[in-house]
Amino acid sequence: MKTLPTQPETLVNTELQNPHVSVDCVIFGFEEGDLKVLLIERNIDDSDFQSKRYSLPGNLINDNEDLDTSAKRILRELTSLENLYLQQFYAFGDPNRVKSSADAQWLNAVRDVPTARVITVAYYSLVKLDDYQPSAASFARKAFWCSIHQIPDLAFDHNQILDSALRSLKNKLRVEPIGFELLPKKFTLGQLQRVYETILGTTLDKRNFRRKILNKDFLKPLQEKQKGVPHKRARLFEFDQERYESLKSGQFSFEF
Amino acid sequence: MKTLPTQPETLVNTELQNPHVSVDCVIFGFEEGDLKVLLIERNIDDSDFQSKRYSLPGNLINDNEDLDTSAKRILRELTSLENLYLQQFYAFGDPNRVKSSADAQWLNAVRDVPTARVITVAYYSLVKLDDYQPSAASFARKAFWCSIHQIPDLAFDHNQILDSALRSLKNKLRVEPIGFELLPKKFTLGQLQRVYETILGTTLDKRNFRRKILNKDFLKPLQEKQKGVPHKRARLFEFDQERYESLKSGQFSFEF
Repeated sequence: MKTLPTQPETLVNTELQNPHVSVDCVIFGFEEGDLKVLLIERNIDDSDFQSKRYSLPGNLINDNEDLDTSAKRILRELTSLENLYLQQFYAFGDPNRVKSSADAQWLNAVRDVPTARVITVAYYSLVKLDDYQPSAASFARKAFWCSIHQIPDLAFDHNQILDSALRSLKNKLRVEPIGFELLPKKFTLGQLQRVYETILGTTLDKRNFRRKILNKDFLKPLQEKQKGVPHKRARLFEFDQERYESLKSGQFSFEF
Repeated sequence: MKTLPTQPETLVNTELQNPHVSVDCVIFGFEEGDLKVLLIERNIDDSDFQSKRYSLPGNLINDNEDLDTSAKRILRELTSLENLYLQQFYAFGDPNRVKSSADAQWLNAVRDVPTARVITVAYYSLVKLDDYQPSAASFARKAFWCSIHQIPDLAFDHNQILDSALRSLKNKLRVEPIGFELLPKKFTLGQLQRVYETILGTTLDKRNFRRKILNKDFLKPLQEKQKGVPHKRARLFEFDQERYESLKSGQFSFEF
């Protein structure tokens, strides 16, 4: 079996690695009108590796780390991203998930026990893309935002992990007000609707959306209106976190 | 270190076990007015093991199995329960989660690599208690339903896993109509309210509950009323699964 001409150089602390469990991070980056995901291009020179060059940022956990700490460290080591909230969402454990031949070549080059079965615990996060500039390191040659409509063939079962993360994100958006972190403090209902449309990947009826969101009773209408727009200026709103918390915890909230 | 006088006898196929990853099952059993959880008493004769005799049903996965298959097999091997829907909800990976001294004694007796770190993937399920009669086998001496208000000190981090499962269950109850499987096909709103009260561990305002649940628009009122009760007979309802699915998938449902 062919090996890489040179080993990727910055695989720090491999002696600490637990060869049986990894973490993978699905970082969604929102920008108006598009939802992207953070991918890495792996440090592969050999032309045999043209397929599966891309993956989610992920690696083996260290034996002395809990899973959350591993996820934060690995994301930082590969992409320089830090200070974001990573939510564990699923463990993937197909016995053959790292055993395709293209993946085996990569693993032979970078791991001590390339044939071991690896269970991966997957995390996701949703951030405002502009707030995070990835910068590749370790065995990542590039770290970049890729539109979820243009995802290439990824290593291992990473396409499946990404699909699963996207489903989790959509479900969460339906039951918790996560979209607000992606907007400026004061926003229009139109802006809010576009957040929902972008993440859900669908078009929403304007009147229906407004009625439902205002019924929730945790949007605070302001006296101010939008500035500097050519069209009719829309009213601005703020998200009322306190009101939301009290609605959620106070009375029995039968939300489905 | 002391070892057990006799090895538990029916630890089948230990040569297939992956010593690094386990699954644990939190099976909630509902009966009117009480929520219980399925525990096992482990096969321990030595009086030194009086603490931590109890645990959730769980064990190491086999190397050729995916996680869902492992969970089903292990639950069946220890408690004879099968044909229930197990939902994965979280992976627990504290590096020291199996390393307390009481746990170490047990592991020394039953495992080849007792000191290995073990990550566990936890599953839960909610069933009608009357439909499932557990029967202990393998290293379980007993398998029994225990009220969630009387949970003893459990092995490893199983108390924490149980708490986490209960939170997941409550969250799910708030966003999906899972309570209906626990009731007869035709039920009164009072019965339904008691399902919610039992699982959420709280008392709900009757009028408020009725208004909210009827607003959801997937309860079908029947012409029939309750039979054989001494008090005023209440109207019976059916859950309208079809209506629920169409409400959920059809239009944008902004549920939080």
